[in-house]
Amino acid sequence: MNGMLWYGADYNPDQWLDRPDILARDIELMKKAHISVVSLGIFAWSALEPAEGDYRLDWMQEVIDRLWAAGIRVDLATPSGARPAWLAQKYPEVRRVNPDRVRQLFGDRQNHCYTSPVYREKVRAIDQALARRFGRHPAVVMWHISNEFGGECHCELCQQAFRDWLREKYGSLDAINRAWNTAFWSHTYTDFSQIESPAPQGESAMNGLILDWKRFVSHQTTDFMKWERDCVREIVPEAKVCVNMMYRFDMIDYFEMGREIDLASWDSYPTWHKPTQTFEETAIDTAMMHDLIYSVKGQPFWQMECTPSMTNWQGVSKVKKPGVNLFSGLQAVAHGADGVLYFQWRQSRGAFEKFHGAVVAHDGREDNRVFAEAARLGALLEQLAPVAGERKEKQAAIVFDWSAKWALEGSQGPRNKGLGYWEEITRHYAALSRLGVNVDFVNEDAELSGYRLVVAPMLYMLREDFAAKLRAFTQNGGTLVVTYWSGVADDTDLCYLGDTPHGLCDVLGLRRLEIDGMYDGETRRCIPAEGSPLAACTCGTLCEVEALEGARPLLLYDEDFFKGHAAAAVNDFGAGRAYTLASRFEEGFYLPFYRGICEGLVTRAWPDELPAGMLAVRRGRFIFLQNAADTPNRAGDVELPAYGTAVFEDGKRIL
Amino acid sequence: MNGMLWYGADYNPDQWLDRPDILARDIELMKKAHISVVSLGIFAWSALEPAEGDYRLDWMQEVIDRLWAAGIRVDLATPSGARPAWLAQKYPEVRRVNPDRVRQLFGDRQNHCYTSPVYREKVRAIDQALARRFGRHPAVVMWHISNEFGGECHCELCQQAFRDWLREKYGSLDAINRAWNTAFWSHTYTDFSQIESPAPQGESAMNGLILDWKRFVSHQTTDFMKWERDCVREIVPEAKVCVNMMYRFDMIDYFEMGREIDLASWDSYPTWHKPTQTFEETAIDTAMMHDLIYSVKGQPFWQMECTPSMTNWQGVSKVKKPGVNLFSGLQAVAHGADGVLYFQWRQSRGAFEKFHGAVVAHDGREDNRVFAEAARLGALLEQLAPVAGERKEKQAAIVFDWSAKWALEGSQGPRNKGLGYWEEITRHYAALSRLGVNVDFVNEDAELSGYRLVVAPMLYMLREDFAAKLRAFTQNGGTLVVTYWSGVADDTDLCYLGDTPHGLCDVLGLRRLEIDGMYDGETRRCIPAEGSPLAACTCGTLCEVEALEGARPLLLYDEDFFKGHAAAAVNDFGAGRAYTLASRFEEGFYLPFYRGICEGLVTRAWPDELPAGMLAVRRGRFIFLQNAADTPNRAGDVELPAYGTAVFEDGKRIL
Amino acid sequence: MNGMLWYGADYNPDQWLDRPDILARDIELMKKAHISVVSLGIFAWSALEPAEGDYRLDWMQEVIDRLWAAGIRVDLATPSGARPAWLAQKYPEVRRVNPDRVRQLFGDRQNHCYTSPVYREKVRAIDQALARRFGRHPAVVMWHISNEFGGECHCELCQQAFRDWLREKYGSLDAINRAWNTAFWSHTYTDFSQIESPAPQGESAMNGLILDWKRFVSHQTTDFMKWERDCVREIVPEAKVCVNMMYRFDMIDYFEMGREIDLASWDSYPTWHKPTQTFEETAIDTAMMHDLIYSVKGQPFWQMECTPSMTNWQGVSKVKKPGVNLFSGLQAVAHGADGVLYFQWRQSRGAFEKFHGAVVAHDGREDNRVFAEAARLGALLEQLAPVAGERKEKQAAIVFDWSAKWALEGSQGPRNKGLGYWEEITRHYAALSRLGVNVDFVNEDAELSGYRLVVAPMLYMLREDFAAKLRAFTQNGGTLVVTYWSGVADDTDLCYLGDTPHGLCDVLGLRRLEIDGMYDGETRRCIPAEGSPLAACTCGTLCEVEALEGARPLLLYDEDFFKGHAAAAVNDFGAGRAYTLASRFEEGFYLPFYRGICEGLVTRAWPDELPAGMLAVRRGRFIFLQNAADTPNRAGDVELPAYGTAVFEDGKRIL
Repeated sequence: MNGMLWYGADYNPDQWLDRPDILARDIELMKKAHISVVSLGIFAWSALEPAEGDYRLDWMQEVIDRLWAAGIRVDLATPSGARPAWLAQKYPEVRRVNPDRVRQLFGDRQNHCYTSPVYREKVRAIDQALARRFGRHPAVVMWHISNEFGGECHCELCQQAFRDWLREKYGSLDAINRAWNTAFWSHTYTDFSQIESPAPQGESAMNGLILDWKRFVSHQTTDFMKWERDCVREIVPEAKVCVNMMYRFDMIDYFEMGREIDLASWDSYPTWHKPTQTFEETAIDTAMMHDLIYSVKGQPFWQMECTPSMTNWQGVSKVKKPGVNLFSGLQAVAHGADGVLYFQWRQSRGAFEKFHGAVVAHDGREDNRVFAEAARLGALLEQLAPVAGERKEKQAAIVFDWSAKWALEGSQGPRNKGLGYWEEITRHYAALSRLGVNVDFVNEDAELSGYRLVVAPMLYMLREDFAAKLRAFTQNGGTLVVTYWSGVADDTDLCYLGDTPHGLCDVLGLRRLEIDGMYDGETRRCIPAEGSPLAACTCGTLCEVEALEGARPLLLYDEDFFKGHAAAAVNDFGAGRAYTLASRFEEGFYLPFYRGICEGLVTRAWPDELPAGMLAVRRGRFIFLQNAADTPNRAGDVELPAYGTAVFEDGKRIL
Repeated sequence: MNGMLWYGADYNPDQWLDRPDILARDIELMKKAHISVVSLGIFAWSALEPAEGDYRLDWMQEVIDRLWAAGIRVDLATPSGARPAWLAQKYPEVRRVNPDRVRQLFGDRQNHCYTSPVYREKVRAIDQALARRFGRHPAVVMWHISNEFGGECHCELCQQAFRDWLREKYGSLDAINRAWNTAFWSHTYTDFSQIESPAPQGESAMNGLILDWKRFVSHQTTDFMKWERDCVREIVPEAKVCVNMMYRFDMIDYFEMGREIDLASWDSYPTWHKPTQTFEETAIDTAMMHDLIYSVKGQPFWQMECTPSMTNWQGVSKVKKPGVNLFSGLQAVAHGADGVLYFQWRQSRGAFEKFHGAVVAHDGREDNRVFAEAARLGALLEQLAPVAGERKEKQAAIVFDWSAKWALEGSQGPRNKGLGYWEEITRHYAALSRLGVNVDFVNEDAELSGYRLVVAPMLYMLREDFAAKLRAFTQNGGTLVVTYWSGVADDTDLCYLGDTPHGLCDVLGLRRLEIDGMYDGETRRCIPAEGSPLAACTCGTLCEVEALEGARPLLLYDEDFFKGHAAAAVNDFGAGRAYTLASRFEEGFYLPFYRGICEGLVTRAWPDELPAGMLAVRRGRFIFLQNAADTPNRAGDVELPAYGTAVFEDGKRIL
Repeated sequence: MNGMLWYGADYNPDQWLDRPDILARDIELMKKAHISVVSLGIFAWSALEPAEGDYRLDWMQEVIDRLWAAGIRVDLATPSGARPAWLAQKYPEVRRVNPDRVRQLFGDRQNHCYTSPVYREKVRAIDQALARRFGRHPAVVMWHISNEFGGECHCELCQQAFRDWLREKYGSLDAINRAWNTAFWSHTYTDFSQIESPAPQGESAMNGLILDWKRFVSHQTTDFMKWERDCVREIVPEAKVCVNMMYRFDMIDYFEMGREIDLASWDSYPTWHKPTQTFEETAIDTAMMHDLIYSVKGQPFWQMECTPSMTNWQGVSKVKKPGVNLFSGLQAVAHGADGVLYFQWRQSRGAFEKFHGAVVAHDGREDNRVFAEAARLGALLEQLAPVAGERKEKQAAIVFDWSAKWALEGSQGPRNKGLGYWEEITRHYAALSRLGVNVDFVNEDAELSGYRLVVAPMLYMLREDFAAKLRAFTQNGGTLVVTYWSGVADDTDLCYLGDTPHGLCDVLGLRRLEIDGMYDGETRRCIPAEGSPLAACTCGTLCEVEALEGARPLLLYDEDFFKGHAAAAVNDFGAGRAYTLASRFEEGFYLPFYRGICEGLVTRAWPDELPAGMLAVRRGRFIFLQNAADTPNRAGDVELPAYGTAVFEDGKRIL
């Protein structure tokens, strides 16, 4: 498995069992496209078990044998993502209950109850049947556990599981009442059975409960995933498992889930070519997700799904223009992917995603643009095999913690029209990315050693222990950047009493006085403080007013009642240095700000400044230079066509 | 009944039974307004049967006798559109179940279950009571079956009826699983009882099921209408029946329902004078609906409802400016109406529609503008009696098929933000209409003989047999226009495998390569191909890329990766000619395009080019010239005031 | 209690019972802030009765004693606004049923059934426990009955209560059927049990029913409030009660509720500093609510809640800029407030409103801007003690009637996109307010004696008896202003038959011909009639066309088919004069219009014209001059800083 970059697609032969000609043609075309692995049978449960306990695995045996014969490996799916109609009908408890307490009917997919003992038993049976039959097949190199985990269930089983989880976490109702400040609005619980998950017709205002419910959902989803993993490993102890994660997915703490799997992966569907964003911006946004998924385990991942052409479920389905599929595949590799796979190999004839792009379209042709480009990418990935397994150097870390995000976004105020948390993150990431600095994402459980720079954007919920880590990191010579609205609440969303940012006032050399919300489009001017290298700019969204207690101002507000107060400041602390950004600045602020910070701190991927559109990424001994633009571009003596890529190994161009 | 244009209104004396003075005054005013027919008792069930089985028909007898005495005929309504409270209370099954499976409480109207045996029995009883008492009354010339059929019910009775309908249509579950491609997402049905109608908490992604549900709803609604019709005819075999249809109504296949009735009609409520549209555009949009309703039976129809002034249920209630009620009444006649009726005769004092305009308003006066204009229209319709019964010559047909529309709009992709199907249809219709060409609408069951031009806009779902008809039509000398995104799927929404537009590639001389979605406002430039008579223009929404295999390009894309590919092309096929429009063009494209096509193909209603605002329509030996503008206008030596109309019989001006 | 302006805050010590240090510090800081009263224990039910029947009042005794010792009085809350979890769990009937007939789960607050006998009993028990223990405590000067009453319940108990209320009001079903015109759409009721409250899955179109439901909800809410009041008074007959009302609150007829209480108050949360409004506009909008609440009882009120800094629940939480808390506190007093209180004294640590501004913030400091400004306002209010109890002179009245508003807004047409009722009201109020004229609000039960000017904007629902009062008022020399869309329907929303505005045609010297809706942004030009003092302007929203029958035109429409008709007119009637405004004019119209009308009619608060931003208000012998602008401003020789206030007593400046 090492020494190669995997190339493949979701493969759903169960949709074509009545067309052996098509199944045969699939293998032939896969070879032409340099396919080395397929994710097999993700939605095949009905085909594998058409009636309860009636397993029909022979067709899959044939498919796997044929793939193996063709040199193609299998990422074998557990089919739990979509259950058969008979199962949904016979056992209502497996169907989810919506937040409004209405149980779902059969339909769609990925909507089973994660708690249901019946569902777990039925999943166990089919998973183990697959494991027994195929678990030791030489073609099977990976297990694809279910599919795109997500969602939540509010059934009575889940309510009980939630209460048990709370009892385990807090020990007593008293502790819960304190943690959630239930005295507010007289919500004191006197019996566990009074606690219920949020509902449109029920609780919607108890921040601590809502936060813990989100944590529970993430926990329970991960617990279900572990159940499946362990069902497989009971039969095949050495089985490797992966899950496919999603773009900016809010409902699961992927760091938590990542601890339980062997390989992280994600399904990447950027809306390339949209009029509201440059191609480069879309590319950086995609890179950010690659780096987040890399960070989940701190090791190479797979881009488990993408489209060779277009999706069918976005508002507007744009096709990738010529060269873009190549660009995006190589970009994934640059950021740490060891595998690039599509959804899906062959377009379905009917149902929801029949117009989702695939390597083989309804026309069945190999002489079209999409197939040709897919085959070309397959060939290039073979050529780039040496990149496989290469890790990325630790340089900068951005703090991104699911619990902290949930707390921030659920906290009610100071700007309910939108805090723009991802927008804030993106500003920092994009600047570092354009500078060619490697960025990891870390949560509040992380160790910070090895990083030179840590950025904590809107770290509203700051745990005591993590505040201590940030302090130590800075003390020991690290560079810390903290923004407005950080260090406000503890890990149950109780506000810290006393000065804030809690635990960081001395590190930052200041304390928060007030924070003012800005309307959309409303900005405030900032000017450089004396001696500051920063330029005048505007800011908005939220303007925090600080009392400096040691820090030196870098920018000063130049408007409103807080005119003259610091909008940005720096403080020397121990052997390190801590910056405070008291507001969200216009985008142009961040690149020069981080260029100054990074100078002498980290080695950038490309020694010279790059023109707009050119992006350089270092992955171990390899450097990828990509032209994220639809016109030719040049960096030094390297000229790249639109969407072109150059790869260097130890400084030598190999592509 | 022949030899006259009917003029009338909905008449609801049941709201005024305690005011005999008003009922007497009604007759007096009707005479002044030249009323010849009223739609009687549409919502009178409570007055006719105040308690179960307790029929009170005497008041209606009096009303009908009095109308008859005044020379006014009756379009007698079955009152099923709104059931009494006692019925809704005693028999819950008659109340609809919403998609979320919640049964409705009593309220509103037109919301009964079409399947309920109880409801059918109760309707039968009241309908037959009416038929027995009034069915042979000389005043009763027509039966108005229920009112504005629409909506759907998801109760268990309907679920069962749906399953029976499916069993009848497909024969077996296997056939259904294949037709709907249920293997996708593992939705294979193993028992009919697993099939349920779409629901927000259930199925929302199975395109084939959703399509068949829509067909079933249309079928069941029509079946209910037939039940009522046959209840009446059991008593009065010679009874004529009509239903009132609605603007761009999506839920019923009016071609299907039209087969079962004697007279088509519709309720016409254009939003005249809105700032986003010229008056002419609103007029053409209205004309399009007239022509669609004419096409339902291919014979004259009634405009069953309209307002003499304003509605009360639109976002902004604008009154028709002076002359506009006349304009719109005569426009209906020009396009084939033999009757023009209002909702309603007299404004209701209270409840939902009390501010809907009526011939007699709350002030009860006859000396106001609205009554005066209504009376004037009545007089003119008497004058135009010779037009009655006149048919329209077959010239051009636009393919409009409810099933195809449902399939297209439910297909998920390539542009979920909106495909703008009506917008596409309108572009073709408006150009032909401005050219004075008669347009029929035909579905995929239609015979195409007699037409010179057939236009198939976005004919996504193209049945094999209809593709063959289009082929034969062209082969035999017809002119065919097909747009992008046609010939994609079969009649169960399964995509055709192989080249597309399926069944038409050789007719059109090309095949589809790709289709790209455009964002709102995003356009692509097109330039004329060498020798093409068409002018440069822009296009948007969807851009299809074609491989020409015989066709000659007319327009070429001049931007994006598909630059140089044909945006419009023409192919000679047999004795005919087939045009492909690969994208949606700016509005200005269509008039010159169709002017060129129609030259020598059809005779236009007006020999010369008409200035903006002037519209000419031919109905048999009559030509109607209308000024759809608020300033005077001239065509040749005919000068018309704002909103004015001239009528010519065999070339001689009679109005 | 007289002779002082109360200054205080909501105080929730029940959230801090485990922090005696904080409770002690509270008293210390209250003294520094000049606090004289606190609203105590609004959400303390759980703390007062942690289990059914288990009363724990000692902590509250301690708090009250300590407050009393510090000279601080108590506005003691009944805690019914938020019930304990145990109560919601044990007695499901206390939880509301939503309009969709789904019973709420436990959560949020202010969501109990007002009808539930169980809830009333449990409330009675806790209220009387409080009354027995604290009702005669010298600190307790007022009872704060529940909190922000609102909402509605659709449970079976409420349905039955609604039917009983209808039976009581109408006497018979026949009367109801007539009043609601149920014959429309065949909705005739034959049994009271058929009547149900409006529901998304039920009745939504029966205007009369919906109107009566709104009246019932207001009635039932008031009835519940009276229950609580009487529970307290049974123990403490001399108890004074107040309720806190809300901004533009639609669901309760505050005139109805006001009759039952001793003190009106409201919770004032203007969105100061928003970009879509000048500060002065926000100030006038706030003043309008002050005057409405003053009008509820026609006597001084309290501003029961406001924030010293920001809220946490608005879309964007803006802090009050320096000086604005002072401005707004003094503005309340100018308009008749005898008390200014905050929500809340100390910020909660957790849950929904933890970021709502408070006098003491999470940092616990007294050396910050917000605390300092709050303390300064406390000192000023002590200085202004002589203002307490002073009443406002009767000058102008604007008719504002909750039933009329409900009828107007629920009437369906002529502009469902929005009638902008509050916008219309504001235009009249703002002009009068800028002119320094005292404005009361009166409903259709009011006596009009004492007023010089009565304004009836969009008085769609006009009762016969009130029309007679308007007639007599004018006859006797009053000046009346009536707008378009008045006098249309009676008090059950039945349209008057015959000429309209019903009952006022001769008073106004005209009758309505038509009314035309305008789209957003659509306007019509108006020009002065001959000899009219008014200037040309534009109008929109709705344009009524009048037939003048005696009135003299002031403005003429200059566009559209109604060009030349009067857009404004005046009629002499008896000893008085009646103006008709037939449309909504641009904002600039109203100030000169009312300046002309008021000349010689009323004495304005400030003799000279004031510059933009300066507002003068007379409260008895006091005149308040405020600068509603963020820059210094001057009126005569009085110069005020940004947001500054001057107060004059009998012409002598005292602040």
